[in-house]
Amino acid sequence: MNHLTRDTRLCISLAGRPSNLGTRFHNYLYGELGLDFVYKACTTTDLEGAMLGIRALGIRGCGVSMPFKEDVLDLVDVVDPSAAVIASANTIVNDDGLLTAYNTDYLAVRALLPAVQGPAAVAGSGGMAKAAVAALRDSGFDDVTVVARNPQTGRLLAERYGFGWRSELGELRPALLLNATPVGMDGGAESADLAFSAEAVDAAAAVFEVVAVPEQTPLVRRARKAGKQVILGTAVSALQAAEQFALYTGVRPSDEQIRRASEYSRS
Amino acid sequence: MNHLTRDTRLCISLAGRPSNLGTRFHNYLYGELGLDFVYKACTTTDLEGAMLGIRALGIRGCGVSMPFKEDVLDLVDVVDPSAAVIASANTIVNDDGLLTAYNTDYLAVRALLPAVQGPAAVAGSGGMAKAAVAALRDSGFDDVTVVARNPQTGRLLAERYGFGWRSELGELRPALLLNATPVGMDGGAESADLAFSAEAVDAAAAVFEVVAVPEQTPLVRRARKAGKQVILGTAVSALQAAEQFALYTGVRPSDEQIRRASEYSRS
Repeated sequence: MNHLTRDTRLCISLAGRPSNLGTRFHNYLYGELGLDFVYKACTTTDLEGAMLGIRALGIRGCGVSMPFKEDVLDLVDVVDPSAAVIASANTIVNDDGLLTAYNTDYLAVRALLPAVQGPAAVAGSGGMAKAAVAALRDSGFDDVTVVARNPQTGRLLAERYGFGWRSELGELRPALLLNATPVGMDGGAESADLAFSAEAVDAAAAVFEVVAVPEQTPLVRRARKAGKQVILGTAVSALQAAEQFALYTGVRPSDEQIRRASEYSRS
Repeated sequence: MNHLTRDTRLCISLAGRPSNLGTRFHNYLYGELGLDFVYKACTTTDLEGAMLGIRALGIRGCGVSMPFKEDVLDLVDVVDPSAAVIASANTIVNDDGLLTAYNTDYLAVRALLPAVQGPAAVAGSGGMAKAAVAALRDSGFDDVTVVARNPQTGRLLAERYGFGWRSELGELRPALLLNATPVGMDGGAESADLAFSAEAVDAAAAVFEVVAVPEQTPLVRRARKAGKQVILGTAVSALQAAEQFALYTGVRPSDEQIRRASEYSRS
């Protein structure tokens, strides 16, 4: 049995297709840290009504997933720079009726960028690619190539941040390779494929994988085999959730607690 | 740690001053019956936004307390007869966006009315007195006196249901005495007082107490001493919560489960 009281703070998430990851991650840490909070994944067909409800019911925080990450910006009071820079939010914090939108994916990618010098390439043109390209620019990378098959979204993303676009990496050999496509994702049609060629991996200094399931994507395995510095998708996923957790509760979990919560959420 | 998932159904309550009773009662029975539900007491300063949120977030049910019991009727789609008969609701059920208002206080009082013949008197003119007077009328009592110090609310209540009003019971000796005032309530200024005189209690066949804290009010003690049939406020409180529970979950707890949940909620 749970032990909620009238004082328990409620956090929720809104997604077109809710997963259990957030619910398990946050509730695990509430228990671990003895915080009087509860977290529940929701869905909605009425984002405006949901935001009104968050204010009216005093819901402390709300994770935001597809397809609400852009539309939600019009329904809050304050847009934090982390969300403004990519015009996309994944976290709403409610301070006594004042709603602020954040993007902790951006914050997590930025915090995890390796200290490598030289050109970088980002594969993908979706939401996570946008967070990655903005994080690279804001961290001082001045030579970034967006690699995306879709010329419209790829070119748009690259130009937005003053970078170039390519449909294939080709002969480029960037120092940092960042995969923000679903290539390598568990069960996907291309789950056995590499998001970047083996030659590009071998020539890079570091590989940043955003796919979190499975943790060991073909790209990660190849990069590790070649002795490269590797940043894992599970690290991004855990850190963005930990940033959310800190925004909601004011408590920052330790790295070890984040690791355990992340592991639990995926088990 | 709690074990919520994306599929867990959320129920809430709305009150100006939330108590822990509902949260403890419902969560206890969810655990006891293995139901994937969670219950959380809330407050609001925006009832309309709260109702929009209940719809938009798919919240399954909502308990309603003072000061929202009347205003909420304008914000739902359907008003069940239990709420319509007293123009007051304490329970909202959300069926895929269709909100229905019920009054389980009325249902509980009506279900617990003793099978006595003859006149009845109801002390009080608030929400619970209204539920009691309507329940008496709808159960065939045709001689009911509303006893209330406030002539405006007392007379209004009596006339609404075709009965008479008095400021004091006086020489009347009804067969059924029902206390729906706070007289006898723990810590109240009149906690040692009887809601009806000792002479009236001695002459009655049954005494119905609505005050639930403490369970053994002076009225209850006096009536028991005199060997009268007694209906307890804790029975009303438990049965109205059990009716709510059945409306939200579709599961009717056993009498023994209701008793244990009620005891737990007050512990």
